[in-house]
Amino acid sequence: MLRVLVWNEFYHEQTHERAKAIYPHGIHRAIADFLQCDDIQVKTATLEDENCGITKEVLAETDVLIWWGHVRHNLVPNEVVELVRDAVLEGMGMIFLHSAHHSKPFKALLGTSCHLTWRESGDSEVLWVIEPSHPITQGIDRYFTLEHEETYGEPFVIPTPDKLLFIGSFSGGEVFRAGCLFERGNGKIFYFQPGHETFPTFYQAPVQTVIRNAVRFVAPTYRARTGCPHVRKITDEGDYVLKNH
Amino acid sequence: MLRVLVWNEFYHEQTHERAKAIYPHGIHRAIADFLQCDDIQVKTATLEDENCGITKEVLAETDVLIWWGHVRHNLVPNEVVELVRDAVLEGMGMIFLHSAHHSKPFKALLGTSCHLTWRESGDSEVLWVIEPSHPITQGIDRYFTLEHEETYGEPFVIPTPDKLLFIGSFSGGEVFRAGCLFERGNGKIFYFQPGHETFPTFYQAPVQTVIRNAVRFVAPTYRARTGCPHVRKITDEGDYVLKNH
Amino acid sequence: MLRVLVWNEFYHEQTHERAKAIYPHGIHRAIADFLQCDDIQVKTATLEDENCGITKEVLAETDVLIWWGHVRHNLVPNEVVELVRDAVLEGMGMIFLHSAHHSKPFKALLGTSCHLTWRESGDSEVLWVIEPSHPITQGIDRYFTLEHEETYGEPFVIPTPDKLLFIGSFSGGEVFRAGCLFERGNGKIFYFQPGHETFPTFYQAPVQTVIRNAVRFVAPTYRARTGCPHVRKITDEGDYVLKNH
Amino acid sequence: MLRVLVWNEFYHEQTHERAKAIYPHGIHRAIADFLQCDDIQVKTATLEDENCGITKEVLAETDVLIWWGHVRHNLVPNEVVELVRDAVLEGMGMIFLHSAHHSKPFKALLGTSCHLTWRESGDSEVLWVIEPSHPITQGIDRYFTLEHEETYGEPFVIPTPDKLLFIGSFSGGEVFRAGCLFERGNGKIFYFQPGHETFPTFYQAPVQTVIRNAVRFVAPTYRARTGCPHVRKITDEGDYVLKNH
Repeated sequence: MLRVLVWNEFYHEQTHERAKAIYPHGIHRAIADFLQCDDIQVKTATLEDENCGITKEVLAETDVLIWWGHVRHNLVPNEVVELVRDAVLEGMGMIFLHSAHHSKPFKALLGTSCHLTWRESGDSEVLWVIEPSHPITQGIDRYFTLEHEETYGEPFVIPTPDKLLFIGSFSGGEVFRAGCLFERGNGKIFYFQPGHETFPTFYQAPVQTVIRNAVRFVAPTYRARTGCPHVRKITDEGDYVLKNH
Repeated sequence: MLRVLVWNEFYHEQTHERAKAIYPHGIHRAIADFLQCDDIQVKTATLEDENCGITKEVLAETDVLIWWGHVRHNLVPNEVVELVRDAVLEGMGMIFLHSAHHSKPFKALLGTSCHLTWRESGDSEVLWVIEPSHPITQGIDRYFTLEHEETYGEPFVIPTPDKLLFIGSFSGGEVFRAGCLFERGNGKIFYFQPGHETFPTFYQAPVQTVIRNAVRFVAPTYRARTGCPHVRKITDEGDYVLKNH
Repeated sequence: MLRVLVWNEFYHEQTHERAKAIYPHGIHRAIADFLQCDDIQVKTATLEDENCGITKEVLAETDVLIWWGHVRHNLVPNEVVELVRDAVLEGMGMIFLHSAHHSKPFKALLGTSCHLTWRESGDSEVLWVIEPSHPITQGIDRYFTLEHEETYGEPFVIPTPDKLLFIGSFSGGEVFRAGCLFERGNGKIFYFQPGHETFPTFYQAPVQTVIRNAVRFVAPTYRARTGCPHVRKITDEGDYVLKNH
Repeated sequence: MLRVLVWNEFYHEQTHERAKAIYPHGIHRAIADFLQCDDIQVKTATLEDENCGITKEVLAETDVLIWWGHVRHNLVPNEVVELVRDAVLEGMGMIFLHSAHHSKPFKALLGTSCHLTWRESGDSEVLWVIEPSHPITQGIDRYFTLEHEETYGEPFVIPTPDKLLFIGSFSGGEVFRAGCLFERGNGKIFYFQPGHETFPTFYQAPVQTVIRNAVRFVAPTYRARTGCPHVRKITDEGDYVLKNH
């Protein structure tokens, strides 16, 4: 059984008419609804929950954390960010959606500004598959289209992805590295660009396929805290002392 | 003229007899001494300086920042870490030496724990060149040796380096990715493992050659702050509005 | 059911006393014996078979091809090399062992000379895990040792691996990127350095664990011939015409 | 003085009216004309020259080889391909333009089919800079446009580039990894997609800027034949015996 936690800022869907109409129960519920199945169990948490709904215990029982945020990134406490980062380094899988490119955990894990160019004009987007044999692109043909999305453009200030899976092409002319895979510590991280709050992106079948594939792909095969052991000789496996700095 | 700033924690060399004997004026001065030349101008700063000797203005006039720290990483204020990280993302070159693998700026730029396995037993080390054509390995034959170094071992919890230049082999049996190149934003980062405070590592000719080469390699060809511009259309280059989150 | 084909040059084991004593039925049989299990079906082929035992039909029914060769690489016909390369690009997994670094299919798939430094002195080797969370390193602790192996050293003239999983450390001082993962087209390629014909390497449990893990990891999830389609417009998915050059 | 050799198939410009009108002296001459300057000396060679104009001696005096070919790739003898590949592995820089994605030397160096999707409809193209600080993108703003180009689309069957510098966006909807950097052996390889024979692409200032930058970037700092030395011990640097297979 895969245990997924969908985290959402949950602000626009309570304050912005159009977002509310599209996602009446919040983006987190829309994602949970299509992910839930026989072998995937989904929980949700939002900024409104105590401590963002994220504790060390919660993360210890989470295989994959999905994150959506936009204008309230700064309200996520640094302690929560550290818990999330440590869990990924231990092996928890993580998926960042759309404007979560600017979320604190994404920036903390990648180390860069994660800036990009943007425009809210309702461009259409074609998302092209770069790696047809990758598990995350299975079920998608050469490309899929979204009638409307917020335009994101390059340069996207991220480290070179370990694998580039999708490039998006917007009707206004921009391109964007729309599906990027990173490995950090024992954990896998997938960034996926579609998902603006004023469009019904998360109801589109190909978007659901990609996120479902990604959940299965980033789920850990191995999870352990990597320390900084002091060893007296190479055979000295018992004497692990954490370096105190 | 290349402008280099060598930053040193400068603790062991004032408190530990052996370190003091080897580096009476501090590791920073030993590095400055061999780097200084007609077209490289070197300044130094330490933890004792106000604000660590690091301000926005200082970094704006620094092409390459070299960092050595060991047991006082936590005394470097987070504001200084952010200034350093932002400068690297703009294009400033940066070199982290030895135990700076656990320094705050290194961990902030890479996003991982940067843990490793270690032992202070005075093993000898052979450093092997992996990329003989890289500018940083010029002047080094197939390998060079150090009579004594602190042993560092894998796993070294870093993102896959953009380029692996050296692997170290210790007489006790360990191996370590001893020379790693990363690119983050507009900046280049070189990590180089040799340099324990109780050995005369920074007086060794091959170590000096590598650091000198690295200074020239990571120095910026281009330096600019990358924002997160809002553009109304692709030709709309003037209307940059920083996204406020 | 995973279908594995183990290919062996099968020369030393028929002509060299020591190799014959260790692998009386050939290295291919030793590998087949430990791989064979409920869900892995193993066949073997050698240089003595007609057309090396490799045809388009054989490869179409092979999920993973394992290759061992040493002094008779040049006797493998170029037509066989092309069949193998095409199958990997379609998605077939491939594992190259030890001196297969100089085999024609390895060089054809990587594009470089694959040269390395070597010495037959019976050094012992410690193989260190670089990525503890990777499926191929599961079941191995921080390292494993081999009492004797042929020494391989850097520089190893290969493209930067997509993932570096093991570094070997030899008692004579050399280091070597001993476990390297490459992705080419739809296929995954694993190179693993241990396996000299005069040592009982393929009977060692950790070596068997790694090869078994690698078989499962490089096995295809997707297999298809990628063409060079001419399309009249992006929705024009039916009109694929292979570019004739 | 940088020594550049521009190689051209030189077929369309002698047989196809439109190509002839645009490049009356051949694409190689157009490229040579804008590259030639005080410190860059340019020679040209074509398929019509004896041995393609390429010998071991010619390559030994070439710092950067630029290659354009389209429908006559198969007429380039395999011996020439091997000379070119060996020179790159030694350190010679190489630039492949447009339809040279299917040239024999490109495929030999990368090991994949280098297939792509294509359409000759005269789409316009926007080429976006992915890495604004890279030497090859200097002098280009966020993007540049070409009024007409042959459309190339993904998947482009190449190994993951060491660095992705440009993504092209075509008016018909396709995207393409238009500027890719690879390192192989001691050599650097740049692939750049613009340059169809029926459009005046090589007269466009931004295209010239990129190719000029690329010539300087891929030029070797170091050039040497890497062998496969047999060493008796690690200090044994004199006893290099080439492995005979």
